Amino acid sequence: MSTTTATPATPAAALPAPTLRVDGQRLWRALMDLAAVGATSRGGVCRLALTDLDRQGRELVVGWARAEGLQVTVDRIGTVFLRRPGRNPALPPVVTGSHIDTQPTGGKFDGNYGVLAGLEVVRTLNAHGIATEAPIEVAIWTNEEGSRFVPVMMGSGVFAGAVPLEQAWAATDTEGRTVREELARIGWLGDEEPGRHPIGAYFEVHIEQGPVLEDAGVTIGVVPGVLGIRWFDCTVTGMEAHAGPTPMALRRDALQVATRLMQEVVASAAAHGPHGRGTVGMVQVHPNSRNVIPGRVKFSIDLRNASDAAVEAQADQVRAAAQRLQAETGLDIRIETVSSYGAQPFDAGCIAQIGAAAQALGYTHMPVVSGAGHDAVYMARLAPAGMVFVPCKDGISHNEIEDADPAHLEAGCNVLLQVMLQRAGLAA
Amino acid sequence: MSTTTATPATPAAALPAPTLRVDGQRLWRALMDLAAVGATSRGGVCRLALTDLDRQGRELVVGWARAEGLQVTVDRIGTVFLRRPGRNPALPPVVTGSHIDTQPTGGKFDGNYGVLAGLEVVRTLNAHGIATEAPIEVAIWTNEEGSRFVPVMMGSGVFAGAVPLEQAWAATDTEGRTVREELARIGWLGDEEPGRHPIGAYFEVHIEQGPVLEDAGVTIGVVPGVLGIRWFDCTVTGMEAHAGPTPMALRRDALQVATRLMQEVVASAAAHGPHGRGTVGMVQVHPNSRNVIPGRVKFSIDLRNASDAAVEAQADQVRAAAQRLQAETGLDIRIETVSSYGAQPFDAGCIAQIGAAAQALGYTHMPVVSGAGHDAVYMARLAPAGMVFVPCKDGISHNEIEDADPAHLEAGCNVLLQVMLQRAGLAA
Repeated sequence: MSTTTATPATPAAALPAPTLRVDGQRLWRALMDLAAVGATSRGGVCRLALTDLDRQGRELVVGWARAEGLQVTVDRIGTVFLRRPGRNPALPPVVTGSHIDTQPTGGKFDGNYGVLAGLEVVRTLNAHGIATEAPIEVAIWTNEEGSRFVPVMMGSGVFAGAVPLEQAWAATDTEGRTVREELARIGWLGDEEPGRHPIGAYFEVHIEQGPVLEDAGVTIGVVPGVLGIRWFDCTVTGMEAHAGPTPMALRRDALQVATRLMQEVVASAAAHGPHGRGTVGMVQVHPNSRNVIPGRVKFSIDLRNASDAAVEAQADQVRAAAQRLQAETGLDIRIETVSSYGAQPFDAGCIAQIGAAAQALGYTHMPVVSGAGHDAVYMARLAPAGMVFVPCKDGISHNEIEDADPAHLEAGCNVLLQVMLQRAGLAA
Repeated sequence: MSTTTATPATPAAALPAPTLRVDGQRLWRALMDLAAVGATSRGGVCRLALTDLDRQGRELVVGWARAEGLQVTVDRIGTVFLRRPGRNPALPPVVTGSHIDTQPTGGKFDGNYGVLAGLEVVRTLNAHGIATEAPIEVAIWTNEEGSRFVPVMMGSGVFAGAVPLEQAWAATDTEGRTVREELARIGWLGDEEPGRHPIGAYFEVHIEQGPVLEDAGVTIGVVPGVLGIRWFDCTVTGMEAHAGPTPMALRRDALQVATRLMQEVVASAAAHGPHGRGTVGMVQVHPNSRNVIPGRVKFSIDLRNASDAAVEAQADQVRAAAQRLQAETGLDIRIETVSSYGAQPFDAGCIAQIGAAAQALGYTHMPVVSGAGHDAVYMARLAPAGMVFVPCKDGISHNEIEDADPAHLEAGCNVLLQVMLQRAGLAA
């Protein structure tokens, strides 16, 4: 993954359909119509996986797909494949997609854009009577967000064999209902075996969920890959004592030691640039009382980088600092792994194709790594895969104020259209 | 206030009653009997101010006092004065005392020891038929802890004119009941005007509530004064964003800035030694989610020192650091004063007298500043005042495991006996 930020004026690649464009207004209307399902009063969407609202969202999108003549298949984890046949049914489909479940206080675009951009590609091809050699499919992956049921990216994870179906089915929400029960209840427990579905290539468009494109004033992000992630919990144990009567020299202040390690988390990211990320997002102080020296502090550590080796180097740096601090202060410091996701580079061919299409379409573009996971991460294990990012306002997502510029969404969809056509091949 | 830790072998001062000693076992029994009122399953006491348990505690102690022939007066804020007349009723009484209300998970000794040590002085004088020139009084100050009703040290604060009676009466607990209602309900709303009570001198014995005496292996702490306190709330506001997609350079991480300022709080204490204290006890991170860069962090700052000027110098250091951090990072940092208590040195004569008595009694002793407030702070505004500390186990108080050595409690009480006798004068 390299991310030089320049947009060189390279010669435009020949587009497979040089004058064909998606209908940006139709795409926007579809986004707004879907956003009405689970709309929140603050302009966002709450459509948790496998709720009645998820069912309504699925019915709406699949209804649109049927109206476009697409064939519908549902697998046993509830992922939906909407197929536009090609001339050559022996060819594996070129697939795009994303998810339509949201965070509890989610926005209109995260996931939904990827699914509806796929639908817009189909509508555009239909409107122009364009046939492809390979089939084209739009996937609606089940439970990407992981808000209601863990793990995240459940549908694509099961599809890729990374998450056993039985385990995914057994996952429960806070009220004890299982994924399998809820799939059956909302009528989306399909019968296709997950993974028994050929994928010729996979593309996914998504809002960036970060500030890089907006900051650079660039329209298209060409995603070289997804950062590897390691999550840890760190607990520093000192001795709780009164803030007044305890002289500094006799304190075992867990927070003061913890704050030094928290800074090392950030330092580890800076030391492993340009893609290193280090975040302490969650802190619990015990007893958390104004005039009591904290006896115990627990905090989360989130490390990310473009290679697993770089993530591990960051983790080593944090662990070494913890050992030094423990030796220096005598306070106990424990760091436990919570979870870990490997870095996933995308296919060089797909990356090049996306960049060339953006260039030929006249859009500014630049490489932007994905710091967050997406269904495309699992698809990249199965087939050539690539992702297209478009800017989102202030880099904000997973938030009701998540917003995106219709022109950017249209641009990303045009890139998707061209790369899918290129892969699928225009039928003569 | 100076706190050299040596215990020089100076010549013993002449004690007023060289062979007279309190009964340590009787004192211990009284402590255990009072601790049974509101006893918790974990060995502590929960006897919040002006509850039925506080009433029972008051009745128990006042019953013991009546049995010793003491006269009982109650003022309008519920503080009780138990008076042993002197030969010369024109002399102002030598007063000792403390409080019998506790924290919700309090211990057996905080406050209770000061009241029952006063009772033990009286019992000792009675048992030996010793009369004094000035009267001797034991005060039970209302609501020292401030757990149920704010402010802390309410009874002594009203007595000293620092807290208006009407304001104290109007204070409410979490269920909306006022101090005045609760005083009337439990039958301890007296009719003496607070402060209309002469105080010749005031002594208070107390567990240290800190680790200094135990750490030094010393029995008696001679308290030069009480540290001044300033409490602040600090809020650092950045921008909440996803931990993955947001490169380090584009972050506005409120926690990373806050942790640097938290370290300055501790540094300010070290820079203003030996009595500087700096504590961050309470931290609230928003939104406090593992994979979200914190957008806002609020934390408490507790600064203490032996002079108000030194506390202010610490505060200046922290504020200057906040300004530098704000200029450097662009994040908004606000520091608001929550409350402030002036430093209170004790009377030089009382301090000398306590040290001399401890020395003459053969107890190891050293100066130990009080980092926490006590009723003696307000009494020091009205009369010569001094405090005697004894060690508590592991420096822990405001905790159900609060513990103290009976021999230390007896020693502190013997010091109290001698200094009160010295002030009150033995009747010939």
